[in-house]
Amino acid sequence: MSNIFGHNFRLMTFGESHGPALGVVIDGLPAGLYLSAQDIQKDLDRRRPGRSIYATSRQEPDKVEILSGLTAEGRTNGAPIALLIRNHDARSRDYDSHKFRPGHGDWPYFIKYGLRPQPGGGRASGRETVARVAVGAVARILLSPLGVKAEAYTVAVGRVKAEKLDPDFAEIDPLRFADRNLASLAYREVETALSEGDSVGSVVEVRLTGVPAGWGEPVFGKLTAKLGEAFFSIGAVRALEFGDGLAMASQKGSEVNDPLGVDGPITNRHGGLMGGLSTGLPIVARLFVRPTPSISREQISITVDGQATTIVVSGRHDPVLAPRLAPVAEAMALVTLADFYLEPNRHYTVGP
Amino acid sequence: MSNIFGHNFRLMTFGESHGPALGVVIDGLPAGLYLSAQDIQKDLDRRRPGRSIYATSRQEPDKVEILSGLTAEGRTNGAPIALLIRNHDARSRDYDSHKFRPGHGDWPYFIKYGLRPQPGGGRASGRETVARVAVGAVARILLSPLGVKAEAYTVAVGRVKAEKLDPDFAEIDPLRFADRNLASLAYREVETALSEGDSVGSVVEVRLTGVPAGWGEPVFGKLTAKLGEAFFSIGAVRALEFGDGLAMASQKGSEVNDPLGVDGPITNRHGGLMGGLSTGLPIVARLFVRPTPSISREQISITVDGQATTIVVSGRHDPVLAPRLAPVAEAMALVTLADFYLEPNRHYTVGP
Amino acid sequence: MSNIFGHNFRLMTFGESHGPALGVVIDGLPAGLYLSAQDIQKDLDRRRPGRSIYATSRQEPDKVEILSGLTAEGRTNGAPIALLIRNHDARSRDYDSHKFRPGHGDWPYFIKYGLRPQPGGGRASGRETVARVAVGAVARILLSPLGVKAEAYTVAVGRVKAEKLDPDFAEIDPLRFADRNLASLAYREVETALSEGDSVGSVVEVRLTGVPAGWGEPVFGKLTAKLGEAFFSIGAVRALEFGDGLAMASQKGSEVNDPLGVDGPITNRHGGLMGGLSTGLPIVARLFVRPTPSISREQISITVDGQATTIVVSGRHDPVLAPRLAPVAEAMALVTLADFYLEPNRHYTVGP
Amino acid sequence: MSNIFGHNFRLMTFGESHGPALGVVIDGLPAGLYLSAQDIQKDLDRRRPGRSIYATSRQEPDKVEILSGLTAEGRTNGAPIALLIRNHDARSRDYDSHKFRPGHGDWPYFIKYGLRPQPGGGRASGRETVARVAVGAVARILLSPLGVKAEAYTVAVGRVKAEKLDPDFAEIDPLRFADRNLASLAYREVETALSEGDSVGSVVEVRLTGVPAGWGEPVFGKLTAKLGEAFFSIGAVRALEFGDGLAMASQKGSEVNDPLGVDGPITNRHGGLMGGLSTGLPIVARLFVRPTPSISREQISITVDGQATTIVVSGRHDPVLAPRLAPVAEAMALVTLADFYLEPNRHYTVGP
Repeated sequence: MSNIFGHNFRLMTFGESHGPALGVVIDGLPAGLYLSAQDIQKDLDRRRPGRSIYATSRQEPDKVEILSGLTAEGRTNGAPIALLIRNHDARSRDYDSHKFRPGHGDWPYFIKYGLRPQPGGGRASGRETVARVAVGAVARILLSPLGVKAEAYTVAVGRVKAEKLDPDFAEIDPLRFADRNLASLAYREVETALSEGDSVGSVVEVRLTGVPAGWGEPVFGKLTAKLGEAFFSIGAVRALEFGDGLAMASQKGSEVNDPLGVDGPITNRHGGLMGGLSTGLPIVARLFVRPTPSISREQISITVDGQATTIVVSGRHDPVLAPRLAPVAEAMALVTLADFYLEPNRHYTVGP
Repeated sequence: MSNIFGHNFRLMTFGESHGPALGVVIDGLPAGLYLSAQDIQKDLDRRRPGRSIYATSRQEPDKVEILSGLTAEGRTNGAPIALLIRNHDARSRDYDSHKFRPGHGDWPYFIKYGLRPQPGGGRASGRETVARVAVGAVARILLSPLGVKAEAYTVAVGRVKAEKLDPDFAEIDPLRFADRNLASLAYREVETALSEGDSVGSVVEVRLTGVPAGWGEPVFGKLTAKLGEAFFSIGAVRALEFGDGLAMASQKGSEVNDPLGVDGPITNRHGGLMGGLSTGLPIVARLFVRPTPSISREQISITVDGQATTIVVSGRHDPVLAPRLAPVAEAMALVTLADFYLEPNRHYTVGP
Repeated sequence: MSNIFGHNFRLMTFGESHGPALGVVIDGLPAGLYLSAQDIQKDLDRRRPGRSIYATSRQEPDKVEILSGLTAEGRTNGAPIALLIRNHDARSRDYDSHKFRPGHGDWPYFIKYGLRPQPGGGRASGRETVARVAVGAVARILLSPLGVKAEAYTVAVGRVKAEKLDPDFAEIDPLRFADRNLASLAYREVETALSEGDSVGSVVEVRLTGVPAGWGEPVFGKLTAKLGEAFFSIGAVRALEFGDGLAMASQKGSEVNDPLGVDGPITNRHGGLMGGLSTGLPIVARLFVRPTPSISREQISITVDGQATTIVVSGRHDPVLAPRLAPVAEAMALVTLADFYLEPNRHYTVGP
Repeated sequence: MSNIFGHNFRLMTFGESHGPALGVVIDGLPAGLYLSAQDIQKDLDRRRPGRSIYATSRQEPDKVEILSGLTAEGRTNGAPIALLIRNHDARSRDYDSHKFRPGHGDWPYFIKYGLRPQPGGGRASGRETVARVAVGAVARILLSPLGVKAEAYTVAVGRVKAEKLDPDFAEIDPLRFADRNLASLAYREVETALSEGDSVGSVVEVRLTGVPAGWGEPVFGKLTAKLGEAFFSIGAVRALEFGDGLAMASQKGSEVNDPLGVDGPITNRHGGLMGGLSTGLPIVARLFVRPTPSISREQISITVDGQATTIVVSGRHDPVLAPRLAPVAEAMALVTLADFYLEPNRHYTVGP
């Protein structure tokens, strides 16, 4: 159950950080949708590393090739869409496969699979997410005519929290930080960490608008549950809140319940999800992201032979994950929504 | 994808709050496991309402019947186990199917299915979770010989947060509150809410011990992701944290990384999950639970005909959800773990 | 993957021949469909044993109870429908759990599960199919307003093959034999077998009408493949033919291809399935059914302790399986069709 | 549910006849298995067209590239294996997208997807099966150390039926015909059809040896059912028989039951499958294959605009499908077996 996601909009990703290529195959798309490599490329370019000093210096063109699923006119034909992105700039010499990196998946992977640490983290690398962004772009194209939009931006970097949210600013900011006034404080937080060979935690907010009321399924298939699964499948996410969820846990029902008007809830403390279903208001989720585990400060660890050692992780790493993680969070939200969009209609309409 | 959960340990629940019965069918259990209705009953009794003034006064015996899947000696035979719990004390007259209850699934269900509010909330009632607890008990019996244990307890009620955790005390406390010294403050929080016709939020902590390192699957099948799905499938859960996840988002990598020793991580800020896989240390999750939406204070709402109205929700409701939700959280954790326990071994062992 | 069937219309069956009950839970039904126990009962009564000398003398009322999934008005509410059928007349004393029955699943079950032969065959009994017929009835009710019909009848008993098919006669014939003129020959075939303590093979034809063109999915999800899976999941089916499939294997393309007219194929040698998809013409399948393995003639076998022995199978058994299997074949066809009926629409309709 | 196959050994294929590439992604493989492109190439070469006058003259090198899932030492790392085969010799000009070809999937695809006939049949082309053969090779490598073998060969071409089976001869015969003495009659059958611009039907036998007893799951997950699904997912298969299934339908139980010895059934009329589970004896299946629908004789058809017309199908087509279909049948059998090999152990072993 590892590498497949979705029930109606089904995807399977593949590829390692330092292998020949990464990619995804998408099954379940309806026929007739216009799709081009350029459209997908836009989302890949948003995720691409190497845009600023705040990101890894690894340089990858991340050009996507569509291998299947289109007619001569560039429309989907109902068959699987396979997307391929070749790796280029993989410097395996930077990695030491002899020691485990604390805070990283190396050690549990070794226990599970009997594998030594793989160059660049193998499949556990953040690079794996390029395939998610590619399929997210396809989901975006599918949902866009409905008016469904997903945007994610950084709302906290270390101890600096955004106050006045401005997603448009985030789109051009190197940290995707959503508060123009506090951005310089956020930069300083990252620069301090960098200068100390350290990394810093962050928070990403995802905002999904245009989702009609009534998406989701009761009980196990709650949209809340499926978004929860989607977001916690992203490596560094360690906590997740929908709407005002954290605050609600210490409040009263009378403070928390959103009154109902003719078109649904009037206020949105519930974050667009009620009883596990969408309410038509914006779905708001906050992803709490740990600091990058790979740091160049000395840490206590062990070798693959079980000897105590210390490790200084070299290689190229983002000092803060939110800016790179935001497009991945958008993508996971979009593929989850696409899955529910394709869910069979639940009103019986043919009968007597 | 609504009512089925799990890939290897598969379950399907059914039943409404005021219907004839609730139950679950479990597929994928190995043959040869001793299983009895008494063992399952223990967990059901822990969940049962009516234990104290802090819970709904609805009285249900919640007696479980095993309908299939056992040999004459009481061992599993590899076939599905069907568990049945009949409803008894369902007072439909308490419910007003003409108005939507704010904060509740009624309204999005109406949009999705075209259904008027169902008596007792139908399938969206907390009563649905009795089937989850029943199958959780089966998962507990499956995992128990491995040494896997799950316990959940209340760590916050309203503004009162437990400080010195004592799960044994929680087991006998009417609120399952885990701090003996602060319990009386927690009671007062609930009593105040009750006296005001209100409800109050809470936090449940789940602690899973004895899980071997290496459970979980990379990428989409992370144990983190599947637990995230499991916990967010519980109605009132609005935020979720693994380990020290919330704090990590404002900290540095050097503060957060747990050093690695010969047997795995030495400290447990990561909460037992690294790279999406278990590390052998206790898995710790915190579920932030909204206040019960059904309150007897007047709220703004609409009728099923789309007219503005006010509503005072009568019926019997828990003023705080943590005490009833804790056994459900245990159950969902256990069925998730059972699913990974039955995952095929990932070391190839036959080949050259 | 044992006891769940279907992707959109999902069902999970449970129960043993001599256990307390059999049943099925159905997930994925749209809301708003009228459903009653009486409607389901009709199909169960068609399958019921004890109608004639040609069937087992076991007497079961097979009364179905709907446990969940209905509104007060008797319409589906979008939640799972659970159906329960209690066992009554189970004479375990007739069975010898010490010896394996040749031709029966006892022995491979022992190898797989380590189980001694279960009373009445346990889950491997033909009695398991009562749950299939129950869910088939629900699928029939779902599909009926579309004009989809399923009928199955006996077209061969031993060496007697029906020539002039008359499904209406089959409905009243004790062998469901579809040829009025040759029915007495078919009876004699069974009576001869009975008098010798033997059983006899048979062929069931399934005819599905009213299925619109274009149902099915290319490649692995062909309607042909899913019907193949469905029919071969019925115990005694050992060969299967669609349309004129057997004859086609020795013929030429020019003889076999059905010419295309404006509304689709003009003739129906293809049996309603082309490229794996329905063509709008009747889907015709023939199921070749082995003789009942349980016979009262002495056979060579072994004991559970691995000693050579002989066995004379007592207990109550149908001498020919077609009459009882036909309703099961209808049911499996109907649930397969229901699954495709609920498949998301494959034309993209929202886009530019 | 179209393009994914398998529960534990999961695969997703993609690609069109005249698109850029075909391929498959495989999920669920254990780590540590040696795998090389050369090993997979062997199976692809067996399937490759252009070996003789009895096959299409399309020339494709069918070179496979492994894009992911291997360690530096060439062993699986537990992550998905992606296999890519580029298309080269695609002559779209041979195809007329204006007319539907009788007996082919074009017309129902048009109804389902609103697509005009795709060049080369698109995803409905036999070329799609190259990805199946590639993943079948991986399954073969996984199962080979267990002693599991799959071989498929032609046992009938038109009216010529093999009598003395010789699979070794089949391996070198251009028709894969399994009877050395009758091969020349089979050739003549094909040559006659060719000279008439016609095609001819055929029968493929699949023989699976070394499968341990006890594989398969009762009820819906019978190995019989899953093989049925697998074989009927191959385009031209119109009937299927296990063991002596066709003959059994007119015989008696006493003739048909295989006596049980200490190591399982002594004879193999049951074709290696009993109660849906493997018995340890060879699994024998016969696939009845229709003649190639694309023939160069004039046929009655319609245009995409719904006008009556006639069509003479040009392009390059195999006059008989068995020789090309046999490796595909092997592949589908192998991936089905791999799925059951990875099924969790069904004996409970940890408990008291």
